[in-house]
Amino acid sequence: MDGGKEMKTGALMIEARETFCAAHRLHSPYFSDAENKEIYDKCNNFHGHGHNYVLYVVVKSPVDPKTGMVMNFTKMKEIIRRYVVDVVDHKNINMDIPDFKDKIPTAEVMVLQFWEWLEPHFPEGLLYEIRLAETEKNVVIYRGE
Amino acid sequence: MDGGKEMKTGALMIEARETFCAAHRLHSPYFSDAENKEIYDKCNNFHGHGHNYVLYVVVKSPVDPKTGMVMNFTKMKEIIRRYVVDVVDHKNINMDIPDFKDKIPTAEVMVLQFWEWLEPHFPEGLLYEIRLAETEKNVVIYRGE
Amino acid sequence: MDGGKEMKTGALMIEARETFCAAHRLHSPYFSDAENKEIYDKCNNFHGHGHNYVLYVVVKSPVDPKTGMVMNFTKMKEIIRRYVVDVVDHKNINMDIPDFKDKIPTAEVMVLQFWEWLEPHFPEGLLYEIRLAETEKNVVIYRGE
Amino acid sequence: MDGGKEMKTGALMIEARETFCAAHRLHSPYFSDAENKEIYDKCNNFHGHGHNYVLYVVVKSPVDPKTGMVMNFTKMKEIIRRYVVDVVDHKNINMDIPDFKDKIPTAEVMVLQFWEWLEPHFPEGLLYEIRLAETEKNVVIYRGE
Amino acid sequence: MDGGKEMKTGALMIEARETFCAAHRLHSPYFSDAENKEIYDKCNNFHGHGHNYVLYVVVKSPVDPKTGMVMNFTKMKEIIRRYVVDVVDHKNINMDIPDFKDKIPTAEVMVLQFWEWLEPHFPEGLLYEIRLAETEKNVVIYRGE
Amino acid sequence: MDGGKEMKTGALMIEARETFCAAHRLHSPYFSDAENKEIYDKCNNFHGHGHNYVLYVVVKSPVDPKTGMVMNFTKMKEIIRRYVVDVVDHKNINMDIPDFKDKIPTAEVMVLQFWEWLEPHFPEGLLYEIRLAETEKNVVIYRGE
Repeated sequence: MDGGKEMKTGALMIEARETFCAAHRLHSPYFSDAENKEIYDKCNNFHGHGHNYVLYVVVKSPVDPKTGMVMNFTKMKEIIRRYVVDVVDHKNINMDIPDFKDKIPTAEVMVLQFWEWLEPHFPEGLLYEIRLAETEKNVVIYRGE
Repeated sequence: MDGGKEMKTGALMIEARETFCAAHRLHSPYFSDAENKEIYDKCNNFHGHGHNYVLYVVVKSPVDPKTGMVMNFTKMKEIIRRYVVDVVDHKNINMDIPDFKDKIPTAEVMVLQFWEWLEPHFPEGLLYEIRLAETEKNVVIYRGE
Repeated sequence: MDGGKEMKTGALMIEARETFCAAHRLHSPYFSDAENKEIYDKCNNFHGHGHNYVLYVVVKSPVDPKTGMVMNFTKMKEIIRRYVVDVVDHKNINMDIPDFKDKIPTAEVMVLQFWEWLEPHFPEGLLYEIRLAETEKNVVIYRGE
Repeated sequence: MDGGKEMKTGALMIEARETFCAAHRLHSPYFSDAENKEIYDKCNNFHGHGHNYVLYVVVKSPVDPKTGMVMNFTKMKEIIRRYVVDVVDHKNINMDIPDFKDKIPTAEVMVLQFWEWLEPHFPEGLLYEIRLAETEKNVVIYRGE
Repeated sequence: MDGGKEMKTGALMIEARETFCAAHRLHSPYFSDAENKEIYDKCNNFHGHGHNYVLYVVVKSPVDPKTGMVMNFTKMKEIIRRYVVDVVDHKNINMDIPDFKDKIPTAEVMVLQFWEWLEPHFPEGLLYEIRLAETEKNVVIYRGE
Repeated sequence: MDGGKEMKTGALMIEARETFCAAHRLHSPYFSDAENKEIYDKCNNFHGHGHNYVLYVVVKSPVDPKTGMVMNFTKMKEIIRRYVVDVVDHKNINMDIPDFKDKIPTAEVMVLQFWEWLEPHFPEGLLYEIRLAETEKNVVIYRGE
């Protein structure tokens, strides 16, 4: 019996997809109200707006020949849900999440923050990529280096 | 030349799809805070949350033999954008939209309100159905009668 | 405050989407093995095959003005999960589900069976439509009458 | 053994999804060139443009208790491919399809024409609905009556 | 005339998408029944379950200036269908596919096996990546090295 | 306040998705008519055919700590629309676009041409990847090097 151990190896990755819904407002203290309106346009709306975010997390590792797995998908999703999805789902990112108190919640900054939240909970070096789709037309991709 | 006039007629409909992003909070004055939390759960979050809404509008009419159209899609979308999408996109439904001041912005109530906003701007009897997807898992459908 | 009570009413429906994965085999006792192979082709494979099924359930009702809801989506999904999804998910329909013991698990028969499982758990007359997508190319739709 | 015969019946439908790619140009002889440009805008481009069309065909019938099927999906798709998809796929609708020689190939007129092509090849009264998506944002729906 | 030969070159890749439906069961001989239940949970169901798998194959090569192609998509798909899709479609991976007789058919092991099946049939070094989506929420990615 | 400046950096990318509809015909002057028919098959149809193309453009850069952005998505989309989408949308690639006059408009050649059109309008080194989906089954990927 063989969970894959005799096969050629290489860059084997698994990717999990989770979704969450949140409100946010883009406004930077470095700029005037007029500049903020100019830069962030509709995303600067005072009372905020929101999205159905789609989050993709990718880990990279050789396959375990006993389980035939890179990592248990169920365990991987428990980590993503506990340290990201349950934290931000159905929340206002600006007002409800302390780590965003002094940050501008663009998808770029969110993905960098999610990396910090997730990385310590995976075996070292396993986390490979995080992608965050704000809409199907706007996606941010991060590979920590 | 024939835009369709010799063919059998029947229920010919055209459906336009538009999207918008908005924040909202579900909270009813008929219930206590604890009951609201019980009924709306995560959707009752004090500072709101948000969605990428997908809106489908359907009109129904015989085809015009000169144009081969039920109605001009471009004109139809101008109406939908002007009277719905531009009104609610990148807004907080509860706080920014006067018509929702005393309403609970569930997808059901939103779709009923959108019908009222849209119907007067289509030729009488043309508007057939509005569907609103809050997420791909939650959709509301309305056919005015 | 108004959850929608002053608006025009009509056919208001809400639709919930759930997914499950299951194996099945199509084979009818009314036909010979050769006829079964002819009728069901690849779906007649002796050891079965499987699908990621997508299930849509639609209920129809006026909106409740106190909650702004047709029915609580959370409650609706609990019913669908308890009486359908949890019963068939990650199962072999032919071998693991007693109600399919003497049935041919086509999507048509599955949707009829799901109607019987679901209907008693909704208020009378509420259940309007069940759709079951075996693949994105094959969908079955049922409206009990 | 039972393919569904003891269950409640009602409106049972099956829907097949097919895709095809084609070019077309919208131009009506009832209008001047300027009016055509006004009405059809970009779709009036002299050398045409094209789409990945998605075609949904729905038939409606009680389930056959011996097969558990409304109609054999494979047979249904053979009809759709033979009488529609193979006719229009990778073609220029205006120039390559004789039945469109004197027609304006809007999605509305295409769906009416497809109904005429398809209906005689299904058992009488079986064909229930044809939907044609020109893009995910523009869909036409026809139910012959 | 120029199929692209004067343009800057670089990593040009083409990706083909195919789908298949199959049943499988996850169970490892290295573990007890209780451990298997613990590790694979619902995927350990004795009679199996199944999926609509989506397979993406990517090849990488400079463009051929005479054809304007990296590789003929039609030829590429013939290879994928012949050596993968036709082998596994509407099958039970554990019981019907000899190469999986002593393997655990996780998506990871499947993608490694598919690489072995496909690589010899492409010009040397052309095959770049295989991705296999078991569901839209679980994807495995392999780049042979 | 911090737009992300204290966080670990790495390969941060943003991806924008745009769509356009166009007609094309594949025919190479290096081959006879019979060979062209053999190589391009249905895509060689004399009067052309068409697609709903989906275009993904990816830029790569560290995040700007004052805006929390890699690059303004709105500005990025203006560039993509002005130099690609508005040029090819609702056009016949072979007949209407001078830069394709002597080229074979495969998705590979289109993506190489789009790179040439887009690169000068982004800050140097920012453009990272262009993907073009002719259909959901055929995708071309280019990373200029």
